[in-house]
Amino acid sequence: MHLKRRIPVAILGATGSVGQKFVSLLAEHPWFHVVALTASERSAGKVYGQTVRWVQESPLPGDLAQMVLQPSTPPLDVRLVFSALDAGVAGDIETHFAQEGYVVVSNARNHRMEPDVPLLVPEVNPDHLALVGRQPYGHGAIITNPNCSTIGLVLPLKPLHERFGLKQIHVVTMQAVSGAGLPGLSSMEISDNVIPYIHGEEAKMESESKKILGTLKGGQVELADFDISAQCNRVHVLDGHTECVSIALHESVTDQQILEAWSAFEPEPQGRLLPSAPKSAIEYFDEPMHPQPRLHRNLGAGMTVSVGRLRPCPVLDWKFVVLSHNTVRGAAGGSILAAELATARGLLDRSDGGSA
Amino acid sequence: MHLKRRIPVAILGATGSVGQKFVSLLAEHPWFHVVALTASERSAGKVYGQTVRWVQESPLPGDLAQMVLQPSTPPLDVRLVFSALDAGVAGDIETHFAQEGYVVVSNARNHRMEPDVPLLVPEVNPDHLALVGRQPYGHGAIITNPNCSTIGLVLPLKPLHERFGLKQIHVVTMQAVSGAGLPGLSSMEISDNVIPYIHGEEAKMESESKKILGTLKGGQVELADFDISAQCNRVHVLDGHTECVSIALHESVTDQQILEAWSAFEPEPQGRLLPSAPKSAIEYFDEPMHPQPRLHRNLGAGMTVSVGRLRPCPVLDWKFVVLSHNTVRGAAGGSILAAELATARGLLDRSDGGSA
Amino acid sequence: MHLKRRIPVAILGATGSVGQKFVSLLAEHPWFHVVALTASERSAGKVYGQTVRWVQESPLPGDLAQMVLQPSTPPLDVRLVFSALDAGVAGDIETHFAQEGYVVVSNARNHRMEPDVPLLVPEVNPDHLALVGRQPYGHGAIITNPNCSTIGLVLPLKPLHERFGLKQIHVVTMQAVSGAGLPGLSSMEISDNVIPYIHGEEAKMESESKKILGTLKGGQVELADFDISAQCNRVHVLDGHTECVSIALHESVTDQQILEAWSAFEPEPQGRLLPSAPKSAIEYFDEPMHPQPRLHRNLGAGMTVSVGRLRPCPVLDWKFVVLSHNTVRGAAGGSILAAELATARGLLDRSDGGSA
Amino acid sequence: MHLKRRIPVAILGATGSVGQKFVSLLAEHPWFHVVALTASERSAGKVYGQTVRWVQESPLPGDLAQMVLQPSTPPLDVRLVFSALDAGVAGDIETHFAQEGYVVVSNARNHRMEPDVPLLVPEVNPDHLALVGRQPYGHGAIITNPNCSTIGLVLPLKPLHERFGLKQIHVVTMQAVSGAGLPGLSSMEISDNVIPYIHGEEAKMESESKKILGTLKGGQVELADFDISAQCNRVHVLDGHTECVSIALHESVTDQQILEAWSAFEPEPQGRLLPSAPKSAIEYFDEPMHPQPRLHRNLGAGMTVSVGRLRPCPVLDWKFVVLSHNTVRGAAGGSILAAELATARGLLDRSDGGSA
Repeated sequence: MHLKRRIPVAILGATGSVGQKFVSLLAEHPWFHVVALTASERSAGKVYGQTVRWVQESPLPGDLAQMVLQPSTPPLDVRLVFSALDAGVAGDIETHFAQEGYVVVSNARNHRMEPDVPLLVPEVNPDHLALVGRQPYGHGAIITNPNCSTIGLVLPLKPLHERFGLKQIHVVTMQAVSGAGLPGLSSMEISDNVIPYIHGEEAKMESESKKILGTLKGGQVELADFDISAQCNRVHVLDGHTECVSIALHESVTDQQILEAWSAFEPEPQGRLLPSAPKSAIEYFDEPMHPQPRLHRNLGAGMTVSVGRLRPCPVLDWKFVVLSHNTVRGAAGGSILAAELATARGLLDRSDGGSA
Repeated sequence: MHLKRRIPVAILGATGSVGQKFVSLLAEHPWFHVVALTASERSAGKVYGQTVRWVQESPLPGDLAQMVLQPSTPPLDVRLVFSALDAGVAGDIETHFAQEGYVVVSNARNHRMEPDVPLLVPEVNPDHLALVGRQPYGHGAIITNPNCSTIGLVLPLKPLHERFGLKQIHVVTMQAVSGAGLPGLSSMEISDNVIPYIHGEEAKMESESKKILGTLKGGQVELADFDISAQCNRVHVLDGHTECVSIALHESVTDQQILEAWSAFEPEPQGRLLPSAPKSAIEYFDEPMHPQPRLHRNLGAGMTVSVGRLRPCPVLDWKFVVLSHNTVRGAAGGSILAAELATARGLLDRSDGGSA
Repeated sequence: MHLKRRIPVAILGATGSVGQKFVSLLAEHPWFHVVALTASERSAGKVYGQTVRWVQESPLPGDLAQMVLQPSTPPLDVRLVFSALDAGVAGDIETHFAQEGYVVVSNARNHRMEPDVPLLVPEVNPDHLALVGRQPYGHGAIITNPNCSTIGLVLPLKPLHERFGLKQIHVVTMQAVSGAGLPGLSSMEISDNVIPYIHGEEAKMESESKKILGTLKGGQVELADFDISAQCNRVHVLDGHTECVSIALHESVTDQQILEAWSAFEPEPQGRLLPSAPKSAIEYFDEPMHPQPRLHRNLGAGMTVSVGRLRPCPVLDWKFVVLSHNTVRGAAGGSILAAELATARGLLDRSDGGSA
Repeated sequence: MHLKRRIPVAILGATGSVGQKFVSLLAEHPWFHVVALTASERSAGKVYGQTVRWVQESPLPGDLAQMVLQPSTPPLDVRLVFSALDAGVAGDIETHFAQEGYVVVSNARNHRMEPDVPLLVPEVNPDHLALVGRQPYGHGAIITNPNCSTIGLVLPLKPLHERFGLKQIHVVTMQAVSGAGLPGLSSMEISDNVIPYIHGEEAKMESESKKILGTLKGGQVELADFDISAQCNRVHVLDGHTECVSIALHESVTDQQILEAWSAFEPEPQGRLLPSAPKSAIEYFDEPMHPQPRLHRNLGAGMTVSVGRLRPCPVLDWKFVVLSHNTVRGAAGGSILAAELATARGLLDRSDGGSA
């Protein structure tokens, strides 16, 4: 898809950790052009570069550093807004923008489980985008991105569920500190340590997975009916969530069938050559020491999910390891890919002038 | 038990990570007195303090620093030897010492799964010590300590297995770097990283647990018959293995029954007031953020196993988190406690002069 | 000195990082007995154990965990208060307590440079305690503790200044994250990183050193007249500040003379056997890899300052490395030692009813 | 400069840490094409990808992964060899290659201080390349790269020395673990720690700086005559050496004059648009928290040296902070830039067939 000119977009909550990642990733995006950054009342009116506590490894782009922060309320001179808002405020603000006709692509958890809101992983459930047709927002819409740990899980599960049927899923996560936002974890809490608890995370992984891998029927998502158990831990890693997954399937299969299911996976974003779609959504490693956060989190510019160590599980059927970049694939990058899919499917056209 | 004078002991392989921990823990032991340290041919004859790459947080005790390293072969002027040897050489050397009449308490894996060798966790299977009666070593004996990650697992499982019967166990570990020995992991490998593989570790956890929780019948250990699946990871923690455990039981029980099983657990080492037995072998935490390696690994001088986050598992029955100090409880400290139990049960007397 | 009964004390600002360290260190103090903990208005009235974000490696003492937090204002049922307050509020609160007749021993920076306030390192300038006689507080008093990085520096400098006269001092620090308080540095800021700036720290080191090593004359401190240049960095260490020091002396001396000056150093707290005085205030290491934070910060229960690598400096005269525990010797422990000195010198008697 | 076809090159010692970095950086180099990788006898004959313990963040390039390792001896089918050999063997092997007519660009320390060997930092002393004319190797040559910590220092010193004359230099380094090679430092040695000693490093910084900033006169380098004192520390950072520098100058200057000297610095590699020359060799930051390893080490693809915090020094004249990427600018990248300069100046032509 070639656009005549780039689409202007805004980032809500641009000073936080996810907001910064949106800024980084959109700085040179071929379709989207950042024209507005917002922040809380306290910071609105200040210059972005002087307000943000920048912790990204790439330098803050100069033109965006100069931008004056706006409050997180309509109107903004765009049709598409990315929301990196805190859950404490995201719900109402996003609803407000949608009501005013904006297309909101959100990384916040607030609207994720609402029946008419797509909880979108573009490679996994692109058809769920149709749910926006049931939203009460006219030309506006809300599209959400799952929790960072859920995304890494559902991608390799999708082709297995489709072919063999998932019966049971057991997942233990080792999550990076960047997932906790800014300031997030104090260095004194996580250095030389593991924290075996992340508030609300296990419930999110368990419920979101069932929606994402659920089936769209009659305009509604019927939740997947597998059992799923999540245990979530914070470890001393900057970026990249590692997950130890065990599964039981409805069919008896070989490891070769599972590997074949992964390698044959050809999702819509790759077919459409969306700008943020990695060449491979899933990459499998034979080397038993792989994948590792530091070596593989940036594969596919952070959008590829790495998988390794497939082997039989003496309790369920199979077990394997998953790694995904939590602030790229699991947050800002995932939202951008969702917006690309929505754009490619014409969702923005629909609302251009209201006559679609 | 009061000893008239301390028992002289030797440490085989005193320069490595586990060897150093033996040195630290035995420096002021009320029963045992270190009179010999051994090392490889290459280091024998050198002064310990000038040879060891000391990485313990407590300073190297002055008198031991002056000791000249001996080769790892009999004779040594002791009856009891602790083995911190590498698995590459431990097997033959330990057999040799046992044949010459020494009581060897070993942290190496070589003899662990032999049918006549106790794989001892003193709180869990003290009766297995009787296996030494079947060994072909006369007054000599070999007693082994399980793998560091196994010990933390079997302690809280013991009272549950005894009362309710374990059917299935699923465990994912997050293991400290000190478990990899010295030099072990390069800083470049584990900083900002997780390594989702530890060579041989998963098989060891699965097989050793069945032996330790097995039943002594007719002088032999009948392996426990539960299913067990282990996934082992290395994380950036200096000391302390954290484990996410899910279990299915033969009986349907409440969380209160499980907590009661743990709090009522009264093992033999605590009853005998062995010097290295912590007041509580198992300590349960209500706070959901606990246990954590940095906060709890040193509980009970590193010998208490901390447990937390008991809650239902949607796939198996219950899940919880376990933390134990891998080089104390999981290695040197565990061996010392085993030696204390053996001493208290008279195993050293048996071989004093041979007339016992 | 033997006390008939322990002296009741309070800790102002008990929930922060330094406050927690006071709680840890005073939990089993032979002279002092904590009977009150205070916090900000927001936390007053809450139970300490449920309010504090405890990050100490030793568990929170049970009886103090149950204590109800009081607001940081008089009256408190004690004579001696330790202040771990933030500099933002410490100044006025401490003055208020002193005016009401309390003896305040403070770790905050607010009053440090006032001419009538002792900036006390008990081994270095115990005579400066006499300054309290000039304070306008009647039986009340304010005694302060220097900045954490200053304390490690002035201890080994003291005997050199006394014997040979310091002309120039150049110091570069590598400071632990615990010095930044709680939450302090985000894990994302300091992991895999160095931050070459600590707000206000260099000026504090430069000015405080001149006061501490200054001379009490006519009831006033005459500042030391050396030149001093400090560069302060934050590194990824939990506890323990390392400092690279270069000095020029007024006299030409040998390394042996310097080592002799350190080993012959016999300060008042050690002479009085104060409970928190380490056996050696300064310990020198010959091994060139030493001292190191993880190996030596806990020497002398965290109160010994470790020194190593004395060698000629091609630019000034001599250079060496210093290590001290920043939250023990450099904060709470240093304050407690100061309070012990004040107690031993009868400062608390003076104010007991006024009839002393 | 446009080449008709890429120049074939070899990497000696390709499995180590610096060797891996050469592999990464040369994988897509516009001028050079890697056709041979060498290793020790023990590894020669093995496939590179199966032998190397790869720790780079970018994946190992596929074609190089397949390459069979050759022994580190002539002949190799190239004219230009990069040496990442250990100092233990580098000296003789490099001499041997030079004698056989190869141009050796080495990162090893062995030949650095020899009078006829250029110790090259292409922005600082490109004229020193002429020293090869005095070497006894015919068409062969040895060019060396300074120690990783020296390079970061001499770059910002160069324009100051040129304009104002350096009288005294005092530098304290905080060096990354990647500088220690592989396996290098054990995670247990450096996590939560600082090691205040790096064997031989201080002497190297002191002597190499005088050679690099020395003057080529009559075909020889006259050493610079400033005093220099270095203190070298290892900190827990993966890549990027930070240095706290204080200097005294022969002239009295303002901070503006120093900043102007840095911003006006226009060295030869940038003028020639060498492929590895960063746009700015030196970049100055006004923000007092900058530069930091994690934020700035990759500036200019790791070839820019970042500088910040210029301010008066109460002991010498001025002080500032320097950061440079130790394995890129300070090792492999620096060697490649040196080879590019040598190529651009025709050094390879000279030896092509001997008729030059």
